[in-house]
Amino acid sequence: MNSSSVLIVVFVLLPATVVLMSAVNPRPDPKEAAPFARWLVTEASWGVLSTLDPGSGSPFGNVMSFDDGGTGVPYFYLSSLDPTRPFAEKDPRSSLTVSEQEIGTCGGQSDDPQSPACAKITLSGELRRVPEGSTELAMATQSLFNRHPKFNGFPKMNKTFDVFKLELQEVFLVNLFAPPRNLTVEDYLRP
Amino acid sequence: MNSSSVLIVVFVLLPATVVLMSAVNPRPDPKEAAPFARWLVTEASWGVLSTLDPGSGSPFGNVMSFDDGGTGVPYFYLSSLDPTRPFAEKDPRSSLTVSEQEIGTCGGQSDDPQSPACAKITLSGELRRVPEGSTELAMATQSLFNRHPKFNGFPKMNKTFDVFKLELQEVFLVNLFAPPRNLTVEDYLRP
Repeated sequence: MNSSSVLIVVFVLLPATVVLMSAVNPRPDPKEAAPFARWLVTEASWGVLSTLDPGSGSPFGNVMSFDDGGTGVPYFYLSSLDPTRPFAEKDPRSSLTVSEQEIGTCGGQSDDPQSPACAKITLSGELRRVPEGSTELAMATQSLFNRHPKFNGFPKMNKTFDVFKLELQEVFLVNLFAPPRNLTVEDYLRP
Repeated sequence: MNSSSVLIVVFVLLPATVVLMSAVNPRPDPKEAAPFARWLVTEASWGVLSTLDPGSGSPFGNVMSFDDGGTGVPYFYLSSLDPTRPFAEKDPRSSLTVSEQEIGTCGGQSDDPQSPACAKITLSGELRRVPEGSTELAMATQSLFNRHPKFNGFPKMNKTFDVFKLELQEVFLVNLFAPPRNLTVEDYLRP
C-alpha cells in the first residue's frame, strides 16, 4: 500500500467504521430478551420520546438524546422551550422508542428497520423530573453530560433545562421473527 | 495506489460511504422551512410512528419504515399482528417522528441528535388505511416496495399487512437554533 492509500484508510475508512460499528458491547443472543433489551437501551444514545399533546390529546413523538447510566432507566435533559417537557408536566404518560438501526448492528443496507431482524424497543411509563439534590440527580447528570458533551453548550439562562427520567411500567421488544413479546419491567431491570 | 488498496476502497470504503452519506439530494438551506421539511421526510426511510394505547391511553411509539412517494405524505405497510395498526383502528390520532441523524448529514459524531443543528421533524394527524382499488394505493404500494424490498419477504397469509397513510394536520420542525416553529400543512404539501 502506498502512502496516499494509507492516508485514505486512516482519515476516511477508520472514522467511517467507528460510526458504523458504534456498538461498544457485542450483540446478545436475541432469545435472551432481558439482556438484549438492556444492551439495546445502553448502546443507543437517542430515541423518540412520545407524550400526549394536551390540546388535541394526540400522541406527540419528539427526538431526544438520553443515557441510562447503566441502570436500564432512561434519563433525559429536557427544556421548557420544547413541547415534550410541558406536555409531560400536564400528563406524565410517555414512551421512549429506539431502533437497533441507530447503533449500526442491523446488518447494513440489506436490512430494514421494520424487519424483526433489526431490533426495536419501546419503554412505556411516566416521565418525571429527577428530584433536586438527590444522589440520583448527580449520577444522571454526570452520565448524560458524559454521553452528550453538546449539552454543555445548551443555554443555561432561566434554568430552562432539567433532568427527567422515564419511570417504567411496560417493556415492548421485537428482536425475533415471532409475535411481539412483553418483557416484565422486573426482568428488564434486574442487574 | 496498488491493487490491494483499490480492493479495500471498493469493497470496504465505498459501501461504508454509501451508508454514511445516504442522503440522495443535497441538504436545503435550513431557513427554507418547507423545502427542508420535505427533504428530510423524503430522504428518511424509517421513523417512530406514535399511536394511543386504548387500554392505558398512553402514547405508544413504534419503529416503522415508510416512504412518501415524493408527495410529503408518509405511507406505511402495517400488520394487524403489531400493536400500532389495531391501536390506530380504534383511534387514528398519530404522529411520525424522524431525525436527520438517520440520513447521515448531521455532521458526524461531534453532533448530537438533540442539538437543533441536527434537524428533527414530527408530522401529526390521523392514520388511515388507503382505500382498496384506488390509484393512490397502487402508487403507494409501488413506492413502499421499491424503497423497502424486505417487505417482499413479509408473511402474506391471512392478509395481515395493508397500506396506511398519515393524513396530515400539523408539522413540527426544528432545524435551527431558534424556538421550534410550526409550518402549515399547506406550505409543507406545496409541490
